[in-house]
Amino acid sequence: MNIYDISRKTGVSTATVSRVINGSSSVSEKTRRKVLDAIEEYGYTPNVFARGLGLNTMKTVGILCADSSDPYLAQAVYCVEEHCRKSGYDVILSCTGYDHSLKERQMDSLLSKRVDAVILVGSNYIESSDDLNMYIAKAAKTVPVMIINGSINVPNVYCTVCDDYSAIYEITEKMIASGKKNPLYIYNSESYSGMQKLNGFRNALARNGIEVGSGNILFVGSRKPGGKSFPVNVVKAAVAELAAAGHRFDCAIASDDILAVGAVKYANAAGLRIPEDFAVAGYNNFDLCECCDPELTSVDNRLDVLCDHCVSSLMTIFSGSESTIPKHTMFSGEIIERGTTNFR
Amino acid sequence: MNIYDISRKTGVSTATVSRVINGSSSVSEKTRRKVLDAIEEYGYTPNVFARGLGLNTMKTVGILCADSSDPYLAQAVYCVEEHCRKSGYDVILSCTGYDHSLKERQMDSLLSKRVDAVILVGSNYIESSDDLNMYIAKAAKTVPVMIINGSINVPNVYCTVCDDYSAIYEITEKMIASGKKNPLYIYNSESYSGMQKLNGFRNALARNGIEVGSGNILFVGSRKPGGKSFPVNVVKAAVAELAAAGHRFDCAIASDDILAVGAVKYANAAGLRIPEDFAVAGYNNFDLCECCDPELTSVDNRLDVLCDHCVSSLMTIFSGSESTIPKHTMFSGEIIERGTTNFR
Repeated sequence: MNIYDISRKTGVSTATVSRVINGSSSVSEKTRRKVLDAIEEYGYTPNVFARGLGLNTMKTVGILCADSSDPYLAQAVYCVEEHCRKSGYDVILSCTGYDHSLKERQMDSLLSKRVDAVILVGSNYIESSDDLNMYIAKAAKTVPVMIINGSINVPNVYCTVCDDYSAIYEITEKMIASGKKNPLYIYNSESYSGMQKLNGFRNALARNGIEVGSGNILFVGSRKPGGKSFPVNVVKAAVAELAAAGHRFDCAIASDDILAVGAVKYANAAGLRIPEDFAVAGYNNFDLCECCDPELTSVDNRLDVLCDHCVSSLMTIFSGSESTIPKHTMFSGEIIERGTTNFR
Repeated sequence: MNIYDISRKTGVSTATVSRVINGSSSVSEKTRRKVLDAIEEYGYTPNVFARGLGLNTMKTVGILCADSSDPYLAQAVYCVEEHCRKSGYDVILSCTGYDHSLKERQMDSLLSKRVDAVILVGSNYIESSDDLNMYIAKAAKTVPVMIINGSINVPNVYCTVCDDYSAIYEITEKMIASGKKNPLYIYNSESYSGMQKLNGFRNALARNGIEVGSGNILFVGSRKPGGKSFPVNVVKAAVAELAAAGHRFDCAIASDDILAVGAVKYANAAGLRIPEDFAVAGYNNFDLCECCDPELTSVDNRLDVLCDHCVSSLMTIFSGSESTIPKHTMFSGEIIERGTTNFR
């Protein structure tokens, strides 16, 4: 039983049936009664198509994320979905992988479904070139675009980020203050957020008069096809290789907990005492931190807070008060110290 | 520009515009031409509402899962979304938590959106009482219901499971064959799958003449509100407490990798050699297994295979060949041995 059946049964046009369903006042009381009676008689539930036709909204938010099985992105998708649903919006999830052309194509696909907004989860949606970010600006001409953990200055795009630069700067300073003289930085992403973190590391070293060479920055390749998290044993092997080549590190700071776990495994395998001989700090503060031995010091990136702020802002925008919403909101990370460091 | 605007511009009814869009043959060539010209002139893209009205399909599959941030469920959601999208179907994700009434409510909500099918991800959707499973049977009267990692015998419900019983039976036998005499079982879910695993443990012990008492089965409480994975340190504390009370275990088998990591941490903290004094095996074979020290022996539950089979089956059902699809498909798990055991 759909809107056409009701139209046929009542002799009222589908457009008028739609107006009745959506409570429009431009329908006579007699016609309204006839339609409502038929709806009741035939057990018709106004469905999403009818709602869509009448209101031109599906009450649906599209989420693009590279890989919903990545722990960081999985948690963000979970938070966003929950908050949207509780606000009366469905979530269409679309995982794009890390390839640019797929991101563009799936953005188009979401828009063709007339979603009310798009939420981009993860800093990997922002590329270094403006040209590559055009698809975001284009989408924002149709619907509000919210970005979690990425930043771009374009009309109708609202960004919520963690201050990754300062968090890595601060944790690197703490490492140095605790007596470490030769830190290694390990990372696996050159996204906006990835570059912020790397700069935080560089600047903290420069500020403390430690030379930054290619020797103490380790990029452990791109993500595996399929987007699974980086295998810790690759990191362990890479750090061991650097050490064998004569680099003398006394600590490692990683852009992601999983990379830090690799560094912990390297130190354990090499018989180094943690944190005395080799200290380690990660980033994200996920359950992973409690799994390794000793447990991992990490930066809590406040992902739940970011996601809540993003969806709350979106609901305010939907209510028509977009002028009250900042285009860019930055929260501070928080260092959670565990057994892999000995900060003062 | 929507279906009504085209109707108004052309003087053709919305129903006929819809028929033209959907390629119905019951429209005169003259009318078809008029509508198509208007569509071209006004740049109208047939949208999802119109498609919905015409075909009564949104080409959308609803996914219910308890918590998309749980690593097991996150990976399943990722696999299912990718496969559905590649088959031309969108995915609406709805996270229900573990509370029964929310599962029912969100199933109703998905159905009211006229999804083409519902996929239940995770064994926690199947309850021990038939009454509590009624909402699944009811949903299956409307659309096919696919269950990943849970089983129920109801018309129009298709289940894909891993043989959890045999996998735990087999790994317990291997523990015993490697010389262990007093195994501990650790679990945190009493779902269908959870009970299968527990029975596998019980029967392997019975078969080998080892008495199964309450002392060697440890239930570490229900999941935290919010559905985050179980903290490993709670498991570590629980196992230490049992040991302090005089239980002498020489190995632990866990229903989930995260619980097994807790057991590894217990052994490390207690100064036990792994696997000589205390062997450990987990379940799921996630990245986690490589994070602890020694690395964790685990059961690969073939989640990717299960998800692919589920979505392939669904597409066959959509194509009208549901009679070729088994109602229940069981894959075998595979034991992946790492450093926490010494099987022969």
